[in-house]
Amino acid sequence: MTSQYAADETRRWVDAFSEALDACDAAGAAALFGDECFWRDLAAFTWNVMTMEGRDEIAAMLAAQIDSVGPTAWRVEGEPNFAGGVLEAWVKFETKFARGWSILRLKDGRAWTLLTAIEELKGFEERKGPARPIGVIHGFYRREKTWLEAKWAEEKALGAEKQPYCVVIGGGQGGIALGARLKQLAVPTIILEKNKRPGDSWRHRYRSLVLHDPVWYDHLPYIPFPENWPVFTPKDKLGDWLEMYAKVMELNYWGSSEAVRAAYDEKREEWAVEVLRDGRRCILKPKQLVFATGAYGPPNVIPLPGLENFQGQHYHSSAYKTGETYAGKDCIVIGSNSSAHDIAADLWEYGANVTMLQRSPTTVVRSETLMELGFETLYSESALKRGITTDKADLIFASTPFRLMPQGQIPIYEEVRRRDAALYARLAKTGFQLDFGEDESGLMMKAFRTGSGYYIDVGAADLIAEGHIVIKSGVEIQRVEERSVALTDGSELPADLIVMATGFQSMNRALVPIISEEIADKVGKCWGLGSGTPGDPGPWEGEPRNMWKPTQQPGLWFHGGNLHLSRHYSLVLALQIKARMEGLPTPVYGLQKSQHTR
Amino acid sequence: MTSQYAADETRRWVDAFSEALDACDAAGAAALFGDECFWRDLAAFTWNVMTMEGRDEIAAMLAAQIDSVGPTAWRVEGEPNFAGGVLEAWVKFETKFARGWSILRLKDGRAWTLLTAIEELKGFEERKGPARPIGVIHGFYRREKTWLEAKWAEEKALGAEKQPYCVVIGGGQGGIALGARLKQLAVPTIILEKNKRPGDSWRHRYRSLVLHDPVWYDHLPYIPFPENWPVFTPKDKLGDWLEMYAKVMELNYWGSSEAVRAAYDEKREEWAVEVLRDGRRCILKPKQLVFATGAYGPPNVIPLPGLENFQGQHYHSSAYKTGETYAGKDCIVIGSNSSAHDIAADLWEYGANVTMLQRSPTTVVRSETLMELGFETLYSESALKRGITTDKADLIFASTPFRLMPQGQIPIYEEVRRRDAALYARLAKTGFQLDFGEDESGLMMKAFRTGSGYYIDVGAADLIAEGHIVIKSGVEIQRVEERSVALTDGSELPADLIVMATGFQSMNRALVPIISEEIADKVGKCWGLGSGTPGDPGPWEGEPRNMWKPTQQPGLWFHGGNLHLSRHYSLVLALQIKARMEGLPTPVYGLQKSQHTR
Repeated sequence: MTSQYAADETRRWVDAFSEALDACDAAGAAALFGDECFWRDLAAFTWNVMTMEGRDEIAAMLAAQIDSVGPTAWRVEGEPNFAGGVLEAWVKFETKFARGWSILRLKDGRAWTLLTAIEELKGFEERKGPARPIGVIHGFYRREKTWLEAKWAEEKALGAEKQPYCVVIGGGQGGIALGARLKQLAVPTIILEKNKRPGDSWRHRYRSLVLHDPVWYDHLPYIPFPENWPVFTPKDKLGDWLEMYAKVMELNYWGSSEAVRAAYDEKREEWAVEVLRDGRRCILKPKQLVFATGAYGPPNVIPLPGLENFQGQHYHSSAYKTGETYAGKDCIVIGSNSSAHDIAADLWEYGANVTMLQRSPTTVVRSETLMELGFETLYSESALKRGITTDKADLIFASTPFRLMPQGQIPIYEEVRRRDAALYARLAKTGFQLDFGEDESGLMMKAFRTGSGYYIDVGAADLIAEGHIVIKSGVEIQRVEERSVALTDGSELPADLIVMATGFQSMNRALVPIISEEIADKVGKCWGLGSGTPGDPGPWEGEPRNMWKPTQQPGLWFHGGNLHLSRHYSLVLALQIKARMEGLPTPVYGLQKSQHTR
Repeated sequence: MTSQYAADETRRWVDAFSEALDACDAAGAAALFGDECFWRDLAAFTWNVMTMEGRDEIAAMLAAQIDSVGPTAWRVEGEPNFAGGVLEAWVKFETKFARGWSILRLKDGRAWTLLTAIEELKGFEERKGPARPIGVIHGFYRREKTWLEAKWAEEKALGAEKQPYCVVIGGGQGGIALGARLKQLAVPTIILEKNKRPGDSWRHRYRSLVLHDPVWYDHLPYIPFPENWPVFTPKDKLGDWLEMYAKVMELNYWGSSEAVRAAYDEKREEWAVEVLRDGRRCILKPKQLVFATGAYGPPNVIPLPGLENFQGQHYHSSAYKTGETYAGKDCIVIGSNSSAHDIAADLWEYGANVTMLQRSPTTVVRSETLMELGFETLYSESALKRGITTDKADLIFASTPFRLMPQGQIPIYEEVRRRDAALYARLAKTGFQLDFGEDESGLMMKAFRTGSGYYIDVGAADLIAEGHIVIKSGVEIQRVEERSVALTDGSELPADLIVMATGFQSMNRALVPIISEEIADKVGKCWGLGSGTPGDPGPWEGEPRNMWKPTQQPGLWFHGGNLHLSRHYSLVLALQIKARMEGLPTPVYGLQKSQHTR
């Protein structure tokens, strides 16, 4: 296909689509899609984050939304790309209230996948680049506040004589990225963080922790990591960066602050959030309340019979700090995911005798291999060289519907297994149970489906293969004794320390102590796609549940995920909140139902 | 001229130049330059910052340097540009030890101006972009230090059991930018700053201070201001940025630390620097010592007869903080440059009665006008859109030899005067003496020649024109009385406050209390071009004196200037220091002579 033909074919489709939309012809627009087709929308058409699958779902959505959304001004940007029978094009569009980016893929002249993503609200554009603030009103005015005086005044007023429109519970990367977006959109916001300083949630983790994802994947919005930043960020360095970021972006960040209770007043459409700030009680009354308490909910603690008699130490992996005091000690790590591997290796570094109890098969991928096969295309120096900026990469990543994602991942893991066959063979010899997911789609799909069951190998796999970390697989602890554990295979292990690297509950369980069990159940489980694979029961949802979009509880939102997801979806969520603050109509299509309570 | 012809003509010249250099034919290479010609070199050929004017100077420099430098691998990059009879091309080149960028301008096939600028040292390239550090050694090693532990260990060792190779006195933007470059080049460096925290030198200035240069001009290396940064940065916001920057770049920044004495050991080729750190004495022994104590030296205090009897307050402008306590008071500001205007306006904001004593004519340019006519081409959103990044802009700016700079500036100020004629007329009516320099070349030339005599107007000019700030021009203080000042025109003004906005001495005077008067005189005056205009006596130097280059005192350097100069020349200076640390041959051509001692 010549590039001229590709451009013509794209334009033909976009013109026909645009005409059908102008005529409010939902069926006609849907007819332009192929037999297999997907429309993923990020708050541009649905005021929701959802994927329509098939022409019927597309037609139904359009019939419901087209009037209020008023899509228009479709314009192909740049050269469409044709590869493997698929024509891919970037298309700008507008709605009555917003501007957006679209990525369109055509097969044989019909749409196969379409992404529509909100980018900015008309009349509420962010002040950046050519529209950046001037920063000083030229001319002198008596009693004018300086920047610093105005900042102090705002900090003092917000939460006292002036109520924030939004409160974000949790000031890790999720809360900070969202806070920065909201600040840019002039949404008065307070971020509540239990720890004293931004970044402490990273600083307080175990000493050897280093990000397992590379730098190109991890940028925050507005201030990218500099070009001298290491590929893999040490936790304390990330902590310092987050602290500087919160300060430079002028976030209203309340450290040492905990939300202890929150209740929604249906009549006033407003929350009452009881906060302990440095031990002092106050009430905040925001319209919107966001839980950004991490990718996960509370620690998942499993019952261990006899634990009450144990004379050693025991805690959940989230409480682990360092192996410093365990030289020569017998340490049991329950679990075999990322934290389990990192903690086992840290204990070994300090000279402990470490046994890892593997309860279920684990996906292990060497970091170097994943960098090359998983990240190279979108998040790497070579991607930057090809013109794929972080913003573009995020949209390209978002443009693949979750239904199609596994089939793109399976060939990657075929190559992974071929390439690292030697390591996998050595691991297997130790009894370590390896898998790549029920459908062989590997690590990222496990992350989206269950947020668990994998380890990006930065060296612990070798310690296991060498026997430095002993593997016990397919066994459970039958009973904890004073100084040992009895396993279900009849063996017994001496134990001075038991670390439960047993994962976390769903994020909605974080609502229980603050709001109520009832609301946690009404909202339902967070994350998981409903894929029907182990740990991710159906029905099929097509999107991570409850994340970055309206929930069954008005005024309640969840935000989080790794740095990539926190970065990209903070924009989608912030624009939904801003639209509500400004009173724009935001009719939500396909509101998330609660299928599972935990 | 077609673009093909332009490319051919450029290639012909570069080939001929390259051949002459290969043959060590200094005269032949010089013959390729026109009758009027300039070669500006930033440490690539001369290991100095200097401009050769005319074919003879060029031939002499080449004859001296060509063997040791070994220039090679000249390669035109991108399309040459032809405008106004001048062909402009970007050319990469290498020497034995370095890689560099060159900007070449041809007139009628002969070189008119040539810039050669060092960019990196071979074998000591910075670790950034594709060469960024991995940040973690994959695999686990017993007793390996984490990033934080290694950082603590380095901080503890440097200056104690391990001596820094370089000590930088002064931790403002100059010291910080240079420190960042040296850190990137793995030159062990300690930055000494009197104030407690990075940024304090800005925070401690008067409350209303806002940068008069726009954001695009002000970036630091490595971490540009984000896209939401205001055009004009308030002083406290810049302070916070510098503090974050020093932390993120992992500089060894000693706050509350003062260099009280420094002496050079000629035999050991090493300094002994006596430091008071948090009041505790210690000795540092660096090979290189950099004074980065601001663009200026110590305050210039003028003698005021009778001052000892004055019952009000009096101080130099550098000590001014706020007009808060001067409502209704009579305030005299001596001087009419930037600080004088800002302070007078700040006092007026607080309700003081302000008189400005103008001692000599002042260049006043409205900020908006300067932004459009002065900055738009190189440092603006529109420049970015045209592909002129900050790095490119810095090289383009550097490529104009100082001799030619006035003739480029004069037409700008013709337009400035035309555009703001109304303001200038209103100012003139008050008696304010306006000028644009002896040769009408305006503000920037005044800055390079004397560092004084101008004000970028952000509003004070209007206060003067309206009579809110009273102007007394062409008069001096004859005698200070208890509560008034008698002027040389016979009039008398009541006075509760006298602010001496009388400028600063040359940077070399900062050596006097720390090293010696003898060395200060031996090194000579800093800044000034030797233009022969008022305040800048000859002989013509063609470059700012002593800045960013070797001085008459081995191991002693000066660094500073506004944010633009601090950013760009920190690279040039850092590479000169790194080359010495690595023992590369650095034969200095045309070492700066001391023509003036102050």
